[in-house]
Amino acid sequence: MNTPILDSIQLPHNLRDLPLEQLPQLASELRTFLLDSVGKTGGHFASNLGVIELTIALHYVYNTPIDHLVWDVGHQSYPHKILTGRKNRMSSIRQYGGLAGFPKRSESQYDDFGVGHSSTSIGAALGMAVADKLLGNDARSVAIIGDGAMTAGQAFEALNCAGDMDANLLVILNDNEMSISPNVGALPKYLASHVMRDMRGMLHEIKQHSNKVLDKLPAVKEIAEKAETKFKAIANEGSHIKQSLSLFENFGFDYTGAVNGHDVIQLVEILRELRNRKGAQLLHIITKKGHGYKLAENDPVKYHAIGKTPTPENISGSLKTENKPKPTYTQIFGQWLCDQAAADEKLVAITPAMREGSGLVEFEQQFPTRYFDVGIAEQHAITFAAGLACQGVKPVVAIYSTFLQRGYDQLLHDVALQNLPVLFAIDRAGIVGADGPTHAGAYDLSYLRCVPNMVIATPSDENECRLLLSTCYQLNQPSAVRYPRGSGCGAEVSGSLKTVELGKGVIRKQGEKIALVAFGSMVQPALRVAETLNATVADMRFVKPIDVDLIRQLAQPHDFIVCLEENAEMGGAGSAVLETMAQQGCLKPTLLCGIPDVVTEHGDSAKILDNLDLSAEKLLVKIQNWQKLN
Amino acid sequence: MNTPILDSIQLPHNLRDLPLEQLPQLASELRTFLLDSVGKTGGHFASNLGVIELTIALHYVYNTPIDHLVWDVGHQSYPHKILTGRKNRMSSIRQYGGLAGFPKRSESQYDDFGVGHSSTSIGAALGMAVADKLLGNDARSVAIIGDGAMTAGQAFEALNCAGDMDANLLVILNDNEMSISPNVGALPKYLASHVMRDMRGMLHEIKQHSNKVLDKLPAVKEIAEKAETKFKAIANEGSHIKQSLSLFENFGFDYTGAVNGHDVIQLVEILRELRNRKGAQLLHIITKKGHGYKLAENDPVKYHAIGKTPTPENISGSLKTENKPKPTYTQIFGQWLCDQAAADEKLVAITPAMREGSGLVEFEQQFPTRYFDVGIAEQHAITFAAGLACQGVKPVVAIYSTFLQRGYDQLLHDVALQNLPVLFAIDRAGIVGADGPTHAGAYDLSYLRCVPNMVIATPSDENECRLLLSTCYQLNQPSAVRYPRGSGCGAEVSGSLKTVELGKGVIRKQGEKIALVAFGSMVQPALRVAETLNATVADMRFVKPIDVDLIRQLAQPHDFIVCLEENAEMGGAGSAVLETMAQQGCLKPTLLCGIPDVVTEHGDSAKILDNLDLSAEKLLVKIQNWQKLN
Repeated sequence: MNTPILDSIQLPHNLRDLPLEQLPQLASELRTFLLDSVGKTGGHFASNLGVIELTIALHYVYNTPIDHLVWDVGHQSYPHKILTGRKNRMSSIRQYGGLAGFPKRSESQYDDFGVGHSSTSIGAALGMAVADKLLGNDARSVAIIGDGAMTAGQAFEALNCAGDMDANLLVILNDNEMSISPNVGALPKYLASHVMRDMRGMLHEIKQHSNKVLDKLPAVKEIAEKAETKFKAIANEGSHIKQSLSLFENFGFDYTGAVNGHDVIQLVEILRELRNRKGAQLLHIITKKGHGYKLAENDPVKYHAIGKTPTPENISGSLKTENKPKPTYTQIFGQWLCDQAAADEKLVAITPAMREGSGLVEFEQQFPTRYFDVGIAEQHAITFAAGLACQGVKPVVAIYSTFLQRGYDQLLHDVALQNLPVLFAIDRAGIVGADGPTHAGAYDLSYLRCVPNMVIATPSDENECRLLLSTCYQLNQPSAVRYPRGSGCGAEVSGSLKTVELGKGVIRKQGEKIALVAFGSMVQPALRVAETLNATVADMRFVKPIDVDLIRQLAQPHDFIVCLEENAEMGGAGSAVLETMAQQGCLKPTLLCGIPDVVTEHGDSAKILDNLDLSAEKLLVKIQNWQKLN
Repeated sequence: MNTPILDSIQLPHNLRDLPLEQLPQLASELRTFLLDSVGKTGGHFASNLGVIELTIALHYVYNTPIDHLVWDVGHQSYPHKILTGRKNRMSSIRQYGGLAGFPKRSESQYDDFGVGHSSTSIGAALGMAVADKLLGNDARSVAIIGDGAMTAGQAFEALNCAGDMDANLLVILNDNEMSISPNVGALPKYLASHVMRDMRGMLHEIKQHSNKVLDKLPAVKEIAEKAETKFKAIANEGSHIKQSLSLFENFGFDYTGAVNGHDVIQLVEILRELRNRKGAQLLHIITKKGHGYKLAENDPVKYHAIGKTPTPENISGSLKTENKPKPTYTQIFGQWLCDQAAADEKLVAITPAMREGSGLVEFEQQFPTRYFDVGIAEQHAITFAAGLACQGVKPVVAIYSTFLQRGYDQLLHDVALQNLPVLFAIDRAGIVGADGPTHAGAYDLSYLRCVPNMVIATPSDENECRLLLSTCYQLNQPSAVRYPRGSGCGAEVSGSLKTVELGKGVIRKQGEKIALVAFGSMVQPALRVAETLNATVADMRFVKPIDVDLIRQLAQPHDFIVCLEENAEMGGAGSAVLETMAQQGCLKPTLLCGIPDVVTEHGDSAKILDNLDLSAEKLLVKIQNWQKLN
């Protein structure tokens, strides 16, 4: 790989020493390097190819790390990482001990803000801009946000504030007309149609033509002058920069755009001008996801992120999908959803922009009128579901555990307090692997357990997942079924819509002395540990309502109780067992094995679980050591 | 009180039998009744006076309860309650066993959606509209939302979706240019300035004048025709309805307005037309908060809600404020904030539209450049704080416990995972009284405890509140101090900024046999109970990190452990004690006394707490009964 200019850049100040005319060549080299490195390691792909020129231009113009770059979501930060001293570590990205897949403050001083969830960049960059102003720092703040992330309410809240504040903030809207899936909603249509810009262009033309006869028409002249004054007030006229009246100007931003996001020379010129402007600026750039890589350009959803497949074919464009004999939990859910929908025409499914990730592709094809992708808008997804449920429709909200955090108030206030039958199908519960701590589904049992009326189920294998989905769907109250990322133990899945008894667990193995009270994904390791320990294993199935009788039944004949869950120990399922035992007057030594109170690492899930003492091997040692002390 | 027309209305169908011309008289009678009833009972005031005409017009035109009315926040629903069969129970509003202060599905079939938190109405009404369409119901859905609630991101998420869906939805923007406090942000300015409408008017004028000479200027004619076509496409021209190009049309809504919200006849005519239109409609009405009541018109912030002060002077306009010798926790916080800010110029304070409620009035006056009201935008408030903290500024986010639910993801993802020093001053923790379950601060200990890096403090009296605020402010990590609504026991408050040791509790009373492990507001009742029981009382001060040594020290010599907290028992502070005891191998009978897993009632806080067995009297009985069983 011949990348001499790229190789000369250790840090952004080296980049800033380059003559402007070398930047296109640098972009080309960076693209080559990126194709090679992501091809080898896996990771987010299309979005990074789309921002190569922007990233170069930003570090060329802005005085990083004094100036602040906040990358929204952050899956497009690979070029940024390469240019900020991490090129030689790119082969470690998303792997245990290696670079994070997102910007991370503890990783580099060039990573101004840790991200992962969408639509935080404007608010965070605004905070930095206001802080710099208060502290008298001469620094600039830039938020780089995609058009998909703009559909989240938080982005609007931040726009609304920023436009009304005297802070030097640049928001770059990276418009590729899709987030992960193609966008939904009126805003993307608006961005695409540019009605407002057309209007302004037309008014300008009218005025130009009218000028010739304005002396004969004083009324028109006066109106046209008024119009011009208005325009000047709301649009800061640049020389070579095409500007337009837009939605963003309603929020008090000066709008610049739309410009070609793949013309690095023009981007530098525009950014130089914008860096010197006061107040809230919005630059609208048009990019192509996967730019420069034909397969990714043509199918950016597929190439949003790619798995780690270290073969030369990656680069030449024949990505192999891994050979997966076992279906994922996502697929189990997707199949159940279609079957349940066929059996009950009142079922509808809602996703906040995660059609592929949540396994809804087939449902959308089969039941297009009952499928609702609301965009990146978790809050709205849930209140919308509550509204549907009020009228007797039965909504299933398919959502990742980590993103449900963003709809917590809506789940509590709109669904649970009103006891509405909404089923939350919570994917990616527990440790999620390469995406790391920002995406960890480590908290849902804790934050859901305190919510009145909620039922919470934790399936231990694929068939249990289907059973518990069917069970919770039949309930006339809010419920959640949480299942992990990836595949399970490979249990055979029944095609039926059978249900189980609410709030009842089952004993999977009868042993003695030690009772392993296991939830969800920890039932399988519990069974393995129990072989050595000759312990009893209960698959509790439900965290809420918890099986009080079973707990009492387990506590009585056993000397030691061990609770196992893939959730924070604090307030989680083990905590529910302790509450139940206290309430039942059971006094037995009890060990909680869950995710400890730390920010977890990224990397291979099995490795992370092992580090957290949640692998079967580590659990065995932990339990045996604890037993000796008691 | 002479209200013959109002008295003739039992349910909305009686209203619909009235001739149109009687509606102004009905509005007048309804206003009289409202002034009298709220004057006697207390409750939300100005907002209700503002929507009298709208409420009458809505029930007159719409076929309630088949059609759906969703009132945003719902503090403006008193006229709605009066017209839907609850007039004779208005004297019980917000009292225990009486009418709720907000719409509540279990209270009336006319209350289509339970509310309390802001900005849910558009999403919920959209859900109902979509459900009706799926089920083939011929019904209409209307969301009524204030301009303040429009600043919340969730409202935008819903707008963005609704404009892109084929659903019959009417959103009524009730624009009184303020929410509870005067609005902030660019959007309200936009609404106020109507730049876009002006632009359109000017273009129209240009075209009219140009018409005369268009034949001489074919280019202008062509452009003008194009412009006209565009306009017609985006604005549905009505006869008497003044329409304007607006922000909402960017989202795919047909815009109607702005119209006078106090002209009931005109409102009926417009609503009749809108009820028959297809697709997403937005009606922009202008109202005056407190309309018809001079004092409330002039000071709507003060008269947003009034206390229960059953004197005739209420109605004549000389509302007395209650004589309060004891400062509220809100005031304790406000004073501390000013003192701490004077000592540390890096302190800034952030509120999501709760300046008065959170005790920030004086801070804003003293430190205007360090005060940030971000509007009703909890998510943004927290990410903005995170951005500020990145640069070394020290943000204090003043927020109600119940509203922090809406910023949960931001607290976890943006603040806690990055270990940023943001202090959350959590007001209204625990039972809040008249506002009821939607506002109950019953969950924060549970949903915060699982968050890594968080410190959680629960002050037991006013001086402790100040001590713990100072302590948490000094930390270099995220922290929360949660305190109840209203006043405490009246402890003398030091003027210092002294701190206490992190994670250490104190024994307040030494007794025997029973140890009362008390948190926050439950320390005082614990001390009273301990008198009778001769029990030990610990004021734990911190829920996290919890004082492990103190728990061990308490567990050893006592036979019974009782945990007391004003938070959900599930996953709360008592649960933290159980986890610690398990981890320390302490096996002692333990009783959790907290808020049980139910949706709480509204009404007098002392009464609610007593019902939940959390009064000193009930606790005594509960503990004694439990002790007998163990």
